[in-house]
Amino acid sequence: MREVYVIGIGITSFSRLEYPLSEIAAYPAMMAMRDCGIEKVDHLYVANMGASRVSGQTALASAVVDTLSLTPAGAEAIENGPASGASAIKQGFMAVASGLHDVVLVTGAERMREVNNLEATDFVATLTHPIAEYIYGTTLPSLAAMFTRLYMDKYGVTSRHLAMVAVKNHDNAMNNPFAHLHQPITLEGILDGPEALTNNPFVSDPLRFFDFCPVSDGAACVILASKEVADKVKRPRVRLAGVGQATDTHAVHEREEPTDLLAVRRAAEQAMKMAGIKPSDVDVAELHDAFTILEIVESEEVGFFKKGEGHLALEKGETRMGGKIPINPSGGLKAKGHPVGATGLGQAHEIVTQLRGEAKKRQVKDAKIGFTCNFGGFGNNVVCLTFMRED
Amino acid sequence: MREVYVIGIGITSFSRLEYPLSEIAAYPAMMAMRDCGIEKVDHLYVANMGASRVSGQTALASAVVDTLSLTPAGAEAIENGPASGASAIKQGFMAVASGLHDVVLVTGAERMREVNNLEATDFVATLTHPIAEYIYGTTLPSLAAMFTRLYMDKYGVTSRHLAMVAVKNHDNAMNNPFAHLHQPITLEGILDGPEALTNNPFVSDPLRFFDFCPVSDGAACVILASKEVADKVKRPRVRLAGVGQATDTHAVHEREEPTDLLAVRRAAEQAMKMAGIKPSDVDVAELHDAFTILEIVESEEVGFFKKGEGHLALEKGETRMGGKIPINPSGGLKAKGHPVGATGLGQAHEIVTQLRGEAKKRQVKDAKIGFTCNFGGFGNNVVCLTFMRED
Repeated sequence: MREVYVIGIGITSFSRLEYPLSEIAAYPAMMAMRDCGIEKVDHLYVANMGASRVSGQTALASAVVDTLSLTPAGAEAIENGPASGASAIKQGFMAVASGLHDVVLVTGAERMREVNNLEATDFVATLTHPIAEYIYGTTLPSLAAMFTRLYMDKYGVTSRHLAMVAVKNHDNAMNNPFAHLHQPITLEGILDGPEALTNNPFVSDPLRFFDFCPVSDGAACVILASKEVADKVKRPRVRLAGVGQATDTHAVHEREEPTDLLAVRRAAEQAMKMAGIKPSDVDVAELHDAFTILEIVESEEVGFFKKGEGHLALEKGETRMGGKIPINPSGGLKAKGHPVGATGLGQAHEIVTQLRGEAKKRQVKDAKIGFTCNFGGFGNNVVCLTFMRED
Repeated sequence: MREVYVIGIGITSFSRLEYPLSEIAAYPAMMAMRDCGIEKVDHLYVANMGASRVSGQTALASAVVDTLSLTPAGAEAIENGPASGASAIKQGFMAVASGLHDVVLVTGAERMREVNNLEATDFVATLTHPIAEYIYGTTLPSLAAMFTRLYMDKYGVTSRHLAMVAVKNHDNAMNNPFAHLHQPITLEGILDGPEALTNNPFVSDPLRFFDFCPVSDGAACVILASKEVADKVKRPRVRLAGVGQATDTHAVHEREEPTDLLAVRRAAEQAMKMAGIKPSDVDVAELHDAFTILEIVESEEVGFFKKGEGHLALEKGETRMGGKIPINPSGGLKAKGHPVGATGLGQAHEIVTQLRGEAKKRQVKDAKIGFTCNFGGFGNNVVCLTFMRED
């Protein structure tokens, strides 16, 4: 298996973007090509979840390859719900690792804001079990709320812990020019103060407004290449050293222990084993905090903390900037935004920026090993990636 | 790069299927697993174009892996319009060739008949250029009609040649139990006789009713594996020996010579070069005849006949059963059906069946090398595959 390097990266702001989807997907691709000085690619992947439904567009990959004037390079769209981005990176990894292609561009894009928020909730709910969940009106917020309640009862997590995730990630996003929300928040403002219930109303008890990521448009891109190509690129060297993926029961209620996220555990194990590292080796991580509870639980399942102790580490500040393992320096999905098909690419963009030492005000000092967890469905299809700086 | 083998195949009838999409996709997968005696796979791909829009379902791959009880295997949906099927096979090829996975299941499924025919036409049109074609009302039938007219003017193809493709493929489908249309037709009935205009009305001049494939539901599956795994499977040995893919301008009118299908030419060249063969080595081929003209043009572009002479070879019977190079023994998209995401898998199913010598009444004698052309968009993203029988 050939080694695979990330030679170029690009990203749009995650916000509201009033351009056609194929142009949104192309923008960070052009940034990434300029980043590494590459003008020709062998293959292209586009990660996207909802173009067919939200934008009335199929064959998105063919449109993007044409927009970028990259024909005759082959191209496909990759869909794995909110983990489409990391799934597409995995395809790119295999394309280069197999020797079939030398330079593969992976871009992810989503226009979420063409629909209103209620429709966005329904659109995302189309990823739940079609017979056992979706037709009964299940939404991701309602699944997350039930999951949170179980986790609170079993492990002692409180609403204060959830709010601490939100405060931390909003703080981090202040230093990320691409983040959707540049809005510092405080425990006083969203939990303790006299205006807290107005500022932060309940959405799906126990989850409140600031426990949710925003609905964002956005796109991000990485260019993967073989060692031969990477050797010629004059950028700090980052290797995609580990790829892991696992599925779990599609319906959440079918899991033996619903508070376990087995797919996260397995995908992380694979991604770390392939890279030859253990969780304590990771210097910086981007986890999939579409809901605040998920950052806490994933920080346990990927192995940074013992099961049931993620909230204690959070309390001690171990996951904030300067802590033992900074999580979501970008602001995470919570504050950076969650344009679903682009999210895994956005995570990779942040980690590569960190490992290159180019994250400026949000730089994690001496970061050499980075990790991402991209969470599909409600934990039913998870892709984890390990990145390593090589000097 | 590791060698890749097709160890198991399965297919549904292409017709109207009244089951949930995830179950339609799972059915041929179970057939394929039984075919080779494999009960566990490392990874799964689902080729599909329209689940999000037509069936209101995303994360289809996670649903299918769960339906098949194949968790924790990873899974993605692959979309490349009507070439989604062969694109998914290409992903499976890379997954095995890279060494990342040993056994990869690739299933393709589409429910086209949940919508009425007018909506189906609009749904398929979402694959055209979003700004230069779709918003002006372009449909695939209208593009095909203009393309056909140009081809007639330039190369002397007539309506009779188009009808000969339809008659041949309807005849072939009579021997395929999985085909959608079991309806023998004649030149008298659809072109020359007194009832021809009633039987075969104009849809988009010069194309008439029998120049189009039907709107079909359906699914098909192949299981790909490494040589080590294939060695243990007691089935005739078929190797996926060549993979080719190329894109062309997304909008048809931007092509320098609109009657050339450059993406077909390039994808075929790659797929044959990788397998170390030339066009005259191919014993049997499945080409993408969504419109009758396409079989003629593809038979030229892949190299079976000189440019502009495909219709002459057709006249001589060279593409029928027993001819020099039998094309579409399955009945092709024209009579077997075209459930878009499943079509590339259906083509592979037919070729593997032929190379195994198990095609019964429609068996091409001594077939050792087979070829498929899966045509995405209006020729803007094409995937070709070469299969070889090994003894």
